[in-house]
Amino acid sequence: MGKDRLAAFSDGVFAIIITIMVLELKVPHGSSWEVLAGVAPNFVSYVLSFVYLAIYWNNHHHLVHTVARVDGLILWANSHLLFWLSLIPAATAWMGENFLASIPTAVYGTSLLMPAIAYYLLQKAIMRRQGTHSVLANALGGDFKGKISSILYAAGIGLAFVSAWLSVAIYVLVAAMWLIPDRRIENMLREK
Amino acid sequence: MGKDRLAAFSDGVFAIIITIMVLELKVPHGSSWEVLAGVAPNFVSYVLSFVYLAIYWNNHHHLVHTVARVDGLILWANSHLLFWLSLIPAATAWMGENFLASIPTAVYGTSLLMPAIAYYLLQKAIMRRQGTHSVLANALGGDFKGKISSILYAAGIGLAFVSAWLSVAIYVLVAAMWLIPDRRIENMLREK
Amino acid sequence: MGKDRLAAFSDGVFAIIITIMVLELKVPHGSSWEVLAGVAPNFVSYVLSFVYLAIYWNNHHHLVHTVARVDGLILWANSHLLFWLSLIPAATAWMGENFLASIPTAVYGTSLLMPAIAYYLLQKAIMRRQGTHSVLANALGGDFKGKISSILYAAGIGLAFVSAWLSVAIYVLVAAMWLIPDRRIENMLREK
Amino acid sequence: MGKDRLAAFSDGVFAIIITIMVLELKVPHGSSWEVLAGVAPNFVSYVLSFVYLAIYWNNHHHLVHTVARVDGLILWANSHLLFWLSLIPAATAWMGENFLASIPTAVYGTSLLMPAIAYYLLQKAIMRRQGTHSVLANALGGDFKGKISSILYAAGIGLAFVSAWLSVAIYVLVAAMWLIPDRRIENMLREK
Repeated sequence: MGKDRLAAFSDGVFAIIITIMVLELKVPHGSSWEVLAGVAPNFVSYVLSFVYLAIYWNNHHHLVHTVARVDGLILWANSHLLFWLSLIPAATAWMGENFLASIPTAVYGTSLLMPAIAYYLLQKAIMRRQGTHSVLANALGGDFKGKISSILYAAGIGLAFVSAWLSVAIYVLVAAMWLIPDRRIENMLREK
Repeated sequence: MGKDRLAAFSDGVFAIIITIMVLELKVPHGSSWEVLAGVAPNFVSYVLSFVYLAIYWNNHHHLVHTVARVDGLILWANSHLLFWLSLIPAATAWMGENFLASIPTAVYGTSLLMPAIAYYLLQKAIMRRQGTHSVLANALGGDFKGKISSILYAAGIGLAFVSAWLSVAIYVLVAAMWLIPDRRIENMLREK
Repeated sequence: MGKDRLAAFSDGVFAIIITIMVLELKVPHGSSWEVLAGVAPNFVSYVLSFVYLAIYWNNHHHLVHTVARVDGLILWANSHLLFWLSLIPAATAWMGENFLASIPTAVYGTSLLMPAIAYYLLQKAIMRRQGTHSVLANALGGDFKGKISSILYAAGIGLAFVSAWLSVAIYVLVAAMWLIPDRRIENMLREK
Repeated sequence: MGKDRLAAFSDGVFAIIITIMVLELKVPHGSSWEVLAGVAPNFVSYVLSFVYLAIYWNNHHHLVHTVARVDGLILWANSHLLFWLSLIPAATAWMGENFLASIPTAVYGTSLLMPAIAYYLLQKAIMRRQGTHSVLANALGGDFKGKISSILYAAGIGLAFVSAWLSVAIYVLVAAMWLIPDRRIENMLREK
């Protein structure tokens, strides 16, 4: 199986996950400003999750671009990543309905931490096939950005029980940090 | 990343947005003509939004066709467009449930204005890469159609508080204006 | 725009329409055989619509295969077909909930008749571009199968107010008639 | 029609089936641990079905890879497989809502058995075209793994009325058995 098929299936799942989230954005009965304002927390949650999924889609494609041949391990590491990403809409809906409540905010953080770990494992699976001196290994280096993100998600999960505002601020911060596409791989590929 | 991947992902999102709108088209309990007639406002809203999304898909493809190389800015300008388009089903459902109510009609207009602005920014991002004498820049010229649409959407949003009928008429008018695919780019490409 | 893009977007819409129908197949609360049996009408409706959509996907692809160059008319004729197909899930859900009630059965028949007309118009749009002596024109001939289907759908719609059983039987009959892929085009292409 | 189109359409349906299942994973109102814990049975059901669909996607692609030319029979055998797979989300939701109840557990097992049979028929349809000495025929041999799975599903369905725990354990066991991609075909292709 070539990487094109893997990318196409992943694209499909990404496109669906990012779009079905909007199904949760239901305006309740009524047509007043108050009713509309009531959807604001769901809207904020949706925006944050949309940005996260767009970041993952973006970086996922740079990552898959470095793959030469897909093996069984890469395939399952990729499905593992898609599994955790598929939970983001449910976590988003729960946080949107219970905005700034401790447990939903912590669960949302977990729904961000798990794909981060899965993404790390997918990188490992790809590098295992390429060797430690591969383009990807060089490009990632110590993978500082990946590691700091996971630490920040974990901090956000813990802080949700102290101040949910702070947790959400951390989630926004990590998203902002990743909004720039992964220049490391891009640069390495260009130099090659 | 080539433009094919960008087009494929966008295609997926377009296909899903256009299709999940139909999930809102639920006939309530009962099997009489009255029950069916009650869905009419939702149906009208659905038709209008379907036409808008088909127009965007159509023009989006002519636009992407002019792109030679995708950079980070184009990528995010595209995700930004998809974000606003993804809100159309929610706005459609709200307008369908509260047909000709002022606020939902204005919100629906906003859900049309925002993608128009995002589309304009995407054009700018593509032209920035191509230079001001590019095919696209020449094809668009002053982009009269794009500008007049945004003005009409804004007028529709304002008029919703005077006469929602008039707003909907304006939205229909703009759709009719765009039903013809963007001949400007098509023509320029042919002449080239 | 090449036919590949048209086919890819249509594939996406087909895949989503065929799959979201299953969202209507919700087993109500309870875990007894009675509860399960209550879903039977929805299941039967789902099977019928699944078969119809699979037939359309199948024949749509044979049809698109004959297209050399996509123009604006073909594009809109295709979107028009997808629009009517996208209403099948809603009509299926309504018929499933009100099995053998006259109006839902007639509406379901209409949801089958409209795509049949749209498909006919799409064929016309393609032939207009190819000329009357094209492969497609020869393959279709008088398009007996297409015409008889539309007549049968119309008969089914009318008979729904006499005997809904008879209508459903007619819809099943037309599906059976089309289950065989369109050999006419296949044969013409082979001979060429 | 080439196998690429068949694979692309199947990919789309797989991606949607695997993703819409998550729509059933709705956390009910409230933001406590108890509320979250109440979703546990739905989550377990979701994980199991996700793994099953990922296995099918994976093996489906190895299978389609051996196809040289798609005929009408292969096309319908494939649609038949997709039909049964499309019922897994509904069966998953019902089992998730009524965890360890006999009938939903048996119905879930049936929703696993039917695609297994459909997959077997798809293999037959492909081999019929390739001849009995084809790569696929050799690779599958007696298709021990396929046969034992069907027997285990049937056992799980029957045992659901004795001990639903045991049924679920069997479903997990079969999934574990298939988690390894189909090496048989992979090996044959390599040797070729």
